Amino acid sequence: MPYRAPVADIQFLLTHVVGYDQVASTDRFAEADADVAAAILTEAAKLCDEVMAPLQRNGDLHPARLENGVVRTSPGFGEGWAAIAEGGWVGMSGSPDYGGMGLPMTLAAAVNDMMSGACLSLQLAPLMSQGQIEALEHHASDALKDLYLPKLISGEWTGTMNLTEPQAGSDVGALSSKAEPNGDGTYAITGQKIYISWGDNDFTDNVCHLVLARLPDGVPGTKGISLFLVPKYIPDENGNPGKANDLKVVSLEHKLGLHGSPTCVMQYDGATGWLVGAEHGGMAAMFTMMNNARLGVGCQGIGSAEGAYQHALAYALERKQGKTPVSGTGTIADHADVRRMLMTMKAETFTARAIALSCAVAIDLGNATGEAEWKARAALLTPIAKAFGTDTGNEVSQMGLQVHGGMGVIEETGAAQYARDVRVTAIYEGTNGIQAMDLVARKMMDGGEAAMRLIDEIQAQAERARATMPDLAEPVWEAAETLRETTEWLVEQSDMTQRFAGAVPYLRGFARVLGGHYHLAAALADADGPHAALARFYIARLLPDHAGQLAHTRAGADGLYALGVDDLAA
Amino acid sequence: MPYRAPVADIQFLLTHVVGYDQVASTDRFAEADADVAAAILTEAAKLCDEVMAPLQRNGDLHPARLENGVVRTSPGFGEGWAAIAEGGWVGMSGSPDYGGMGLPMTLAAAVNDMMSGACLSLQLAPLMSQGQIEALEHHASDALKDLYLPKLISGEWTGTMNLTEPQAGSDVGALSSKAEPNGDGTYAITGQKIYISWGDNDFTDNVCHLVLARLPDGVPGTKGISLFLVPKYIPDENGNPGKANDLKVVSLEHKLGLHGSPTCVMQYDGATGWLVGAEHGGMAAMFTMMNNARLGVGCQGIGSAEGAYQHALAYALERKQGKTPVSGTGTIADHADVRRMLMTMKAETFTARAIALSCAVAIDLGNATGEAEWKARAALLTPIAKAFGTDTGNEVSQMGLQVHGGMGVIEETGAAQYARDVRVTAIYEGTNGIQAMDLVARKMMDGGEAAMRLIDEIQAQAERARATMPDLAEPVWEAAETLRETTEWLVEQSDMTQRFAGAVPYLRGFARVLGGHYHLAAALADADGPHAALARFYIARLLPDHAGQLAHTRAGADGLYALGVDDLAA
Repeated sequence: MPYRAPVADIQFLLTHVVGYDQVASTDRFAEADADVAAAILTEAAKLCDEVMAPLQRNGDLHPARLENGVVRTSPGFGEGWAAIAEGGWVGMSGSPDYGGMGLPMTLAAAVNDMMSGACLSLQLAPLMSQGQIEALEHHASDALKDLYLPKLISGEWTGTMNLTEPQAGSDVGALSSKAEPNGDGTYAITGQKIYISWGDNDFTDNVCHLVLARLPDGVPGTKGISLFLVPKYIPDENGNPGKANDLKVVSLEHKLGLHGSPTCVMQYDGATGWLVGAEHGGMAAMFTMMNNARLGVGCQGIGSAEGAYQHALAYALERKQGKTPVSGTGTIADHADVRRMLMTMKAETFTARAIALSCAVAIDLGNATGEAEWKARAALLTPIAKAFGTDTGNEVSQMGLQVHGGMGVIEETGAAQYARDVRVTAIYEGTNGIQAMDLVARKMMDGGEAAMRLIDEIQAQAERARATMPDLAEPVWEAAETLRETTEWLVEQSDMTQRFAGAVPYLRGFARVLGGHYHLAAALADADGPHAALARFYIARLLPDHAGQLAHTRAGADGLYALGVDDLAA
Repeated sequence: MPYRAPVADIQFLLTHVVGYDQVASTDRFAEADADVAAAILTEAAKLCDEVMAPLQRNGDLHPARLENGVVRTSPGFGEGWAAIAEGGWVGMSGSPDYGGMGLPMTLAAAVNDMMSGACLSLQLAPLMSQGQIEALEHHASDALKDLYLPKLISGEWTGTMNLTEPQAGSDVGALSSKAEPNGDGTYAITGQKIYISWGDNDFTDNVCHLVLARLPDGVPGTKGISLFLVPKYIPDENGNPGKANDLKVVSLEHKLGLHGSPTCVMQYDGATGWLVGAEHGGMAAMFTMMNNARLGVGCQGIGSAEGAYQHALAYALERKQGKTPVSGTGTIADHADVRRMLMTMKAETFTARAIALSCAVAIDLGNATGEAEWKARAALLTPIAKAFGTDTGNEVSQMGLQVHGGMGVIEETGAAQYARDVRVTAIYEGTNGIQAMDLVARKMMDGGEAAMRLIDEIQAQAERARATMPDLAEPVWEAAETLRETTEWLVEQSDMTQRFAGAVPYLRGFARVLGGHYHLAAALADADGPHAALARFYIARLLPDHAGQLAHTRAGADGLYALGVDDLAA
C-alpha cells in the first residue's frame, strides 16, 4: 500500500471545516474556485504518488554528499526536482507577473502537506524557494525581481535562507557576518552560516542565497541587520549564470534524518550581494520569509504524520498476531490498543491539518481583503500551526513506529525514517518553544483580542451544535471556556517570564481546543459518517488533555527557578 | 561535564521514598544494610563513570558487525564486559551458592539504571545474563545449575533469550521452532529466532541461549511450548566449552539505535539443548525471566533518561543565547522554557525511578517474606515500571534533543543517540501496549484489590501531609480518588476490549498519580530542600495530566471501531 496523497481529506476540510469558500469568493482568488482547487490537488497528488514517494527511501539510503566542494544529490532527486518545477509547483503562490500561478496560500499549504508525506527531504527544496520568492516579491527592488523571480518561480534556480551562525541561533541578532559596500551598489558579504538547507545542489543552474549580515554602520542586535541576495553564480548581462561568486559549501552536516537534504555550512568570502529591502531592515524582510516558512514547516509535520500513518496502517492491515477481539480484518488493526493508536494518529493529523489550513485561509483573506482581523487571525494561528503541526509529525511518526512493534526499529521498514526525518521540524524555523513564546507574547500584544475572537467563534459553533450533538458540543464549549480563562490569566501577566513558563503547554492546550472545534465542524457536516465518528473519538479521548495543559500554564513561573544549578546537576 | 551516575538521588529514594529499610530488615537481606548499599552504589558508579560511559559513542560509531559468521563487537566493549564481570555485577542478585552476591533486586535495579545511563548497548549484555541466571535458578535441574550458573554469574559466559520468530512476536504461542528428543536426555532444536539481543560476542568463551520450542507432542499455542538451554559450544566433561553446537548467527539487524548491541537472527539446525523446567512448561519458566527483564528494561529507560538529562543540562549550561530573564547562569538554562524542559526531565526521571525502585522493593519483600501482598504489589508495579520507565526514557531523551536546538539533530553531539538507543525499550520485552493490557487484565484479576491497597496508601500519606503541605497533599489525594473511581469502572468491565481500549492511558494515569505520591514523600523528607521544590513543580504542572488520561480510559471502546478499514484508509 504505497503513499496516496490525501486529496479527499483535504477537500473535505476546505469545503466543510476551514471555509475555503470565503477565499474563492474574493476578487483576488476568484479563479481558484472549488473546481480549480480540486483539479490542482488532483494534479499535485499524481506528482506526489508517482514521482516523489518513490524517492523517499533513496534520500535516506544515499544521502546527499559533498565531492570536491560540490553537492551531489540523492539518486532521482534531480528528476524529482525537474518534475516539481515543470508542474509549476515551486511558484504556485508566486505572482503571475513573474510566471507564478498566483494561487491562494491555502492551496500551496495543502500541496506542501501532500508533498511532505511523499518525500520530505526533497520537498524542503521547493519550500525554501517559496519563502525566498515571497520575500523578494515584498522587499526586493524591481530590478532584482525582474532578474530573479522568473528563474526561481520556474525552478531553473533555487533559493535558500541564511540566518544561523554558530553563536547566533535563536538569537539571530548575535550574528557577525559582515556586508561592506562595494561602491557600485553591490556589497561584499563575509561570514560563515550554518544549517543551510539545500545550500547547494547539482540539478539547477544557480542557487540564490538570502543572507543576513551587518553593514559597517549597523547597530548591534537585530536592528542592525540587513538582508542580501547572494547568488552562487553572478548573473551576466543576459541574466544567465556567469562568474562564480566568492562563496562555498564548507561541509555537510551528519544528521539524524533528512539525509536527502544537504544541510550546508556556507562560507562567504567577500561574495557579491545585493541589498533586499532597506538598509538595517533585514529582519522585517526575513520575517516575511519566516512566516511563510513557519506555516510551510507546520505542513511538513502534517504531511509526515500522514505518511507515517498510512505506512503504519498498511503494516497493521497485513500483520496477523494473536486472537483479535472483534470480527474484522483479522489483523493487528483489530486489537483495541492498535486501533487506539491508528485512530489517534488519524484524529491528530486531522487536527493539525485543520489548524494549518485555517491559518492559510486567514493569510489569504488578509491578503485579499486587507482586513486587520484576518491578519491578526493569521498571526495568531501561525505559531500554533507550526508547533502543533510538527509536534504531531513527531508524535504520529513515533506512534507509527510503535505500531510496527520490533520491526519499527529495523531501518528497512522505513518506519523509523519518518520519525528521524520529521524530528528537526520541531526545531528549525524557530523551535517550538520559540513559537510558543511568540504566541504568548507578541501575539497577545493585542490584550488577547484575536484569541478571544476565535474562542467566541468556537463557543458560538458549540452552541449551535448543542441541540443536535450535545455529547460533542458540550465538552468543546467547556474546553473553550477553560481556554478563555487561561488566556485572561495570561494577558494579565506583565512579567513575561510568567507567560513563558507555561507557553508550550498553553500552545498545546489551545491546539487541543481548536481540535475540538474543527472536529465538531466536521461532525456537523457528516453527522452519520466517519468524520463524526472520528470527532467522537477525539472529543472523548484527546480533548480532555487540554485541562492538564492549561493547568500547567496557569502555574506560571512560581518555583520554576527554585532549584539552583547545583541542585539541577545533583 | 561527563556522565555521573546518580548515586545521591538513588540513595535519597532508597532512604526516604521507597522504604528500602524494610528490605534490609528481612533475614534474607540483612547484610545489605544502608552502608552496604552505599558501598555497592559507589563502587558501581565508578565503573559506570570511568569504564562504561566512555564506550557509549563507540557503540554508535562502530556498530557490532558480522564477519564470516562471527560477531565482532564495538571497540572497547570486550574490556567493558571484562570490567563488569570482574566487579561481580553480572551476578549481583545471583545466588551465593553459585558465586553470586545475593543482593536484593532493589540494588540490582539501581545499578542497572546507572549502567544504562552510561552505555545502554553494553549494559544490555549483563541484563540478558541476569534474566537467564534467574530463570535457571528457579527452573533448571541441579546438574544444569551446577554447570552453567557459576560461568554465567562470573561473566565467563553470557546468556540470551530466544522467543521471537518472524510470525510469532507478541503472540509467542505461534512459534514453530521444534525440539525432538535425542533419546539421551538431550533434545535437537531446530528453527529460526529473530531479535536476539547479544546473540553472539567475541569476548566470552561461550554464549548460552534459552530457546522456546515445541516438543512433538506439544499442543498448539503457549501451552505446548518448552524451554531449552542451548549453548554455542557444548560443555565437555570438565565443563569447558567443547564442540560447536549446530547453531549460527545468520545476520545482524540494521537498527535505529543500540548499534553496539548485536541483534541477531539465529538459526538452530538440530542444535543440542537441555530442557529447563517441565515439558510444555516453557512459558512459566520464560515468565520468570521476562518479569525480571521487564523491570530491567524499565531501568534501561530511566538510566537513558538520566543520561540524556545530564547531557542536555551540560549543553544548556554552556550555551549562551539571547537575553535571559533572571540573574543566574547567563546561559539558555535561565530561559523559562528551557528551565521548564530541564525541570520536567528531572521530575519525570525521579517519578520513573521511584516506581521502578518501589517495584524492586516489593519483589525483594515478596521473595524474603513470601507474603502474598508484596508479591501482588510487585506484579502490579512491574508493567508500570516497564512502560512508564521506557516512555520516560523516550520522552526525556527527545526533550534533551530539543534543548540542544539545531545541534540536537547533528549526530556528533550525541543527543540524538540517546533518543535512538532508548527507542526500542518501549517495544522489546513486551511492547508498552502489552504492558498496559497486562495491567488492566491479568493484574486486575484480583478485582482491583492490589491496586486499591496502593491507592489507600497514597491517600493515607496525603492525609498525613495535609496539615503541613496542603498545596501538595490535596492534589495528590484528589488525583488518587480519580484513579480509584477509574479503577472501579475498569474492574466492572467484563468485556476485555473495554479495558484494553483505555489500557495505555490508564497505565499512564496510574503512573502520574504514583509520581504525585513519591514526589510528596520526597517533599515530606526534605521540606525546605530541592526535593520539595521539584515536587511542587511536578504536582502543579505534570500531575494534572492524570485527569485527561483517566478520562480517556473511561471512554472505553465505545466507537473505537466505528471507522471501517475503508474509512481508516480514506
